[in-house]
Parts: sequence; structure tokens; C-alpha cells
Amino acid sequence: MNTRAYAAMDAASPLVPYQFDRRELRSDDVQIEILYCGVCHSDLHQARNEWGGSMYPMVPGHEIIGRVTKTGAAVTKFKIGDTVGVGVIVDSCSHCKNCKAGYEQYCEEGATGTYNALERDGVTVTQGGYASQIVTKESFVLRVSDNLDLKAVAPLLCAGITTWSPLRFAQVGPGKKVGIIGLGGLGHMGVKFAVSLGADVTVISTSQSKEADARKLGATGFLNSRDKEQMKAHAGTFDVLLDCVSANHDYTWYLNLLALNGRMMVVGLPTEAPKVQPFSLINNRRSITGSMIGSIQETQEMLDYCAKHNIVSDIELIPIQQINEAYERMLKGDVRYRFVIDLSTL
Amino acid sequence: MNTRAYAAMDAASPLVPYQFDRRELRSDDVQIEILYCGVCHSDLHQARNEWGGSMYPMVPGHEIIGRVTKTGAAVTKFKIGDTVGVGVIVDSCSHCKNCKAGYEQYCEEGATGTYNALERDGVTVTQGGYASQIVTKESFVLRVSDNLDLKAVAPLLCAGITTWSPLRFAQVGPGKKVGIIGLGGLGHMGVKFAVSLGADVTVISTSQSKEADARKLGATGFLNSRDKEQMKAHAGTFDVLLDCVSANHDYTWYLNLLALNGRMMVVGLPTEAPKVQPFSLINNRRSITGSMIGSIQETQEMLDYCAKHNIVSDIELIPIQQINEAYERMLKGDVRYRFVIDLSTL
Repeated sequence: MNTRAYAAMDAASPLVPYQFDRRELRSDDVQIEILYCGVCHSDLHQARNEWGGSMYPMVPGHEIIGRVTKTGAAVTKFKIGDTVGVGVIVDSCSHCKNCKAGYEQYCEEGATGTYNALERDGVTVTQGGYASQIVTKESFVLRVSDNLDLKAVAPLLCAGITTWSPLRFAQVGPGKKVGIIGLGGLGHMGVKFAVSLGADVTVISTSQSKEADARKLGATGFLNSRDKEQMKAHAGTFDVLLDCVSANHDYTWYLNLLALNGRMMVVGLPTEAPKVQPFSLINNRRSITGSMIGSIQETQEMLDYCAKHNIVSDIELIPIQQINEAYERMLKGDVRYRFVIDLSTL
Repeated sequence: MNTRAYAAMDAASPLVPYQFDRRELRSDDVQIEILYCGVCHSDLHQARNEWGGSMYPMVPGHEIIGRVTKTGAAVTKFKIGDTVGVGVIVDSCSHCKNCKAGYEQYCEEGATGTYNALERDGVTVTQGGYASQIVTKESFVLRVSDNLDLKAVAPLLCAGITTWSPLRFAQVGPGKKVGIIGLGGLGHMGVKFAVSLGADVTVISTSQSKEADARKLGATGFLNSRDKEQMKAHAGTFDVLLDCVSANHDYTWYLNLLALNGRMMVVGLPTEAPKVQPFSLINNRRSITGSMIGSIQETQEMLDYCAKHNIVSDIELIPIQQINEAYERMLKGDVRYRFVIDLSTL
């Protein structure tokens, strides 16, 4: 069915208006009118082919909030009018060990990305949320509470779950000293969650200017990571670090902050492989652990938690016509903390 | 009291006969006649000042087996004639958080090394086990069963506990697929322990020639890490890896072998900081965790386990006069799998 969107037509040009056909509903599909879509840094990486393998035309967007407009014959979870979300993945093989264990995001055959990916048929290219509508398998659609500010819920579908999952995995809660490295789209959600979960939270940033915001978000501490003396004074004191930095950096510099059995959870994706000094790992039995988004079940748990605790992202709403300008501002870190597209402007 | 030994007098010369005074017994000290001392690669690193900060003359050796010849007035755990061991550390601050939690090896003020370290007085240099006797605080002395071949027990005090502790931390046991990377002094103990604990063990090595030995030690699999096809075929299949390699290497190459929630435990100490590709960490939620020897309590548990399960090291016994030749052979990897000095030859 005909869908209006904004797309990258190649790696070098700005996004432009674009029309394409979504698939007709299968029996287990839900058709969704998109209200809002968050703008993730990975949208820009993929639109500009910075990770390689990009397929054009590409409609980015995987932080989608909308309303159900149609349901397939076998759909049981949703009905027309429901408020729903679609995140980073829209399918997986469903039969591998990891899928069966409920970890679709780690599907051994590769989960299907919401855009710039191939569907399970190996042919059809997926297209994302900078669009008027989307058709998605119901098992990858999330329920969203109408009690929250929906435009500010959108970034929970990627920035939210990507920080929630590792914080839960590392058992962040009362009595834990937690450091959030990098205060951007991911980091600001990490702070909100860690504070809400009862931890003692410090923001660790290269920009001293972030301190006021960090404290407004609930952090009790701020650590300027360029300040050697401050870093040394806090060595060996953190239980958990959440590394949200995608700029190139050295893991060792942060690792030294960890106490005995401390864990550094990594969600940032620098392009150059960071180095790890083995003495820093071995001292205090420190761990570095990667984490990729979260499972569908965990995403639903996070959304329910957010509805209960009134947690949303800090956003700046933009009309779709400003998407290219938003990309440029995002590159400069000029956003607090997530752009969200208002699809009614399409 | 007068002690005969072999010592490095500087970083460039071979070890030579040397005499020095051990401290007189304090009330909580045990005096031990040394029977055997294992030869650890770190002896060579420190004798030759390869990690910096070496203090000369230096008597290396931290895999010590001996008999109690005298006890201080307050000693309660040991009596004259007891067979005992001394490992990598001989003291710690005893009042920091980690010491109080029973992790002396991670003492926040730094545990006291058995040699080439300063005692808690900050002045006296410790001297190790290439010597006729040693005087050690009883709380850092281990009980050793006479049921085992004592000369082959010596390496358990470093190579043994260094591999036992991370395998236990990673909960290695039945149903777990475990890879031991590098079959040397540490690796061969890692294989013995992992097999004994009931895991399905694969040796991962750059030398195809190690396969026969690997299987003799109980490994059911062998993986040549230079063989890209083999490595690819085993990607995503291991629950635990134990990285015993001290030669420079890339963590990413091995990380890709890990299944969901898999852990790479690192005990090797390459001089160049290894790189980690973040995508490899994030996929399958993989962890890299360092581990440093083990606590005194854990070392005792390991020795008791070895006595019960009849586990010792594979060793080559040498007279102390061959120590310099042994160092050269160790550098070439020409030892299966640990040299042990017979101190009766001193």
C-alpha cells in the first residue's frame, strides 16, 4: 500500500520526499499509522553508509510510535486504535537457540532490522519510520500507554531499551554506584533509569558544560573524564559503568574506575576498536560486557516501567522537513537529547 | 637467619648463588624449609626487569612447597613437620574493603608479592622460593596433602590457582563448552581443572603440534586458531574461554567464539594492550573479565580439591644449577609444562 516518507537516495545527498509501497497485511501483521519517530545517530550512520552495505532508497527510523489502523486475521494482541511502538527489529528466525530463549536481538541468523535490512525472504528491503505508516508482525509490536507524552516515548524504543537492558543485566539498584559515560541520547536515558532504579549515579563526560544537566536528571555526581586528578581520585569506586560513547576512546581509562567485580557495560560503537590494558582488567576482576538493544519482552517491560514511573525522553520535536538540519545539529551534539519527527507534518 | 638461594643481581646477568638473611620469626610467622619451587614465566619477566621496577638482588619463586621447621608463639594453624605451600602473595593490608571481603589478592593498598615487593613496613624487600627456607605469616601459608606428588604440587600455587579461580568464577561445570586458549604452564592446568569439573573442553592453540597433548589432558576438541575456517565454524559456540596467552594478540579473534552471555576470562598479560571490536562484544552480550591469582581461602579450596581428585601439574624437575638454562628453554616454550626446582640440590 502506498506510503509517503523521507528517504536517502544515496550516501551523499540529503533526505528527500519519497513514496513507496508497504506490503499488504499478512495474517499476523499490524498496520500502524505513524505519529512520531525518533532520530537515532545510527539513522545518520546508515543513511550515509558509514557502516557499509547501505541499501538505497533508504527510509530510516526505528523509534516509532503510532496507532493501529488495521489488523491481520490472526492478530490477537492488538485492535484498531491501540497506541503501539516499533523499535529496532521487526523479525528474527524464531527457531535458533537464542530466539527460543527469548533473545530475538541476538538471533543467530541475524534479527531483521526495521530499515536497511532484508526481510526473512532474503529479498525485500525493510523501510523505517520516517513514513506515514508501517506494517509489522504483531509479535514485534509493543503496547504503549496513552498516559505518557507520546512524542517523548518514541526514543524509548531504541535509546531507552539500549540503556535499560544493560543496567538491568548489571543488576543496577539501591546501594550501587553507577557511572554513565557520555551524556547524549543514550546517556540521558541511562541516567534517568539508573536514578529511578535507586542507584547512586555519576555522569562521566568530557564536557564540563554537561554538569548542570546531569544534576537536573538526578545524578548526584559529575566526573570530568579529561581531568586526570578527578579520575584518579575515583579509581576503584564504581560498581557499574555504562559506556554510551561512540566517539573513539580507550576502554582502560574508564575501566580503572571500577571496584572489585565491577562491570563496564558497553553500548557505544566507536569505529576504531578500543584498546584494553590487561592489568586494568585483571585488577579488581573487572569485566567489559557488550549489550545490544533488548528483547521484545524486555522492551515491553521497560515501556510498562516507564508508564508506571512517568519516564520519557527529553526531546525536541521537529517537522520532517527539518530532518537534514537535525542531522547536522546531531553531529555537533546540538540536541537535548533526542530529535523526534512529528509525522503529521509529512 | 642465614638463607642460601639463587638470585638475579641485575636485569642482564644470569642467576647466581646468593646468601641473605631472612627475618627472625614474629609471633604469627611460620618458618619453612623449601623442598620444591616452581618456575613461573613471571619469575623471568621480573628477574629481567621486563615489567619495570625490579629490585636487586632478587630471589624469584612463588610456587613454594616445604615443611614447617619452626612456628611463632601465636601460630595455631601449623606445627613443625607440616607440609605447606606459599604462593604469589605473603601479606596484604587486611583492613580495606577487598581484604575484609576475603579477596587479599585485590587488596586496595596492594597485596605483598612473595618476592620483588616491599613488606608492609614499606622498606624490607621480599625474597622468594629459589632458596633454602622462607619465613611467612601463617595466614598466607597453605596446607598441602602428603598424598600428592609434592614436586608436582608446587605449580598449583600460581599456575593452578590462577586458572582455578576464573574457571570457578565463570561457573564452569557439566553442560558448559569451555575453550582453553594457549597450552602452556597455565593452560595445561586450565584443561585439567575444566575437565575435572565436568565441562566439555577444547584447547585453542596456534600450534597444531599441541593437539595430541591436549587430548591426553582430557580435551575433547582442538581448535587451531590460525585456521580461519575452523575458527569461523566454531563462532558463537563457547560458553567460557580462558585466555592464558601472554604473547601479544587480539581479543576480538577469540571473542567471536562465544555464545550468548559467553565469558572470556583473561589471565594472560600481553605487553601490548589488546584491541576489542565493540560489535563483537555487543553481539551475543559477550564479556571479557580479568582474573588475578585467587584468594588464600580459594587457594586452600583448590589444593583440597586437587588432593581429593588427584590433580597435579605436569612438570620437569631440575637442579637449581640449571635455572638459567630452564629460563632459556621456557622462552622457547620447550617445557611440558612447568619446571620445578629441587631445592635439595642447593
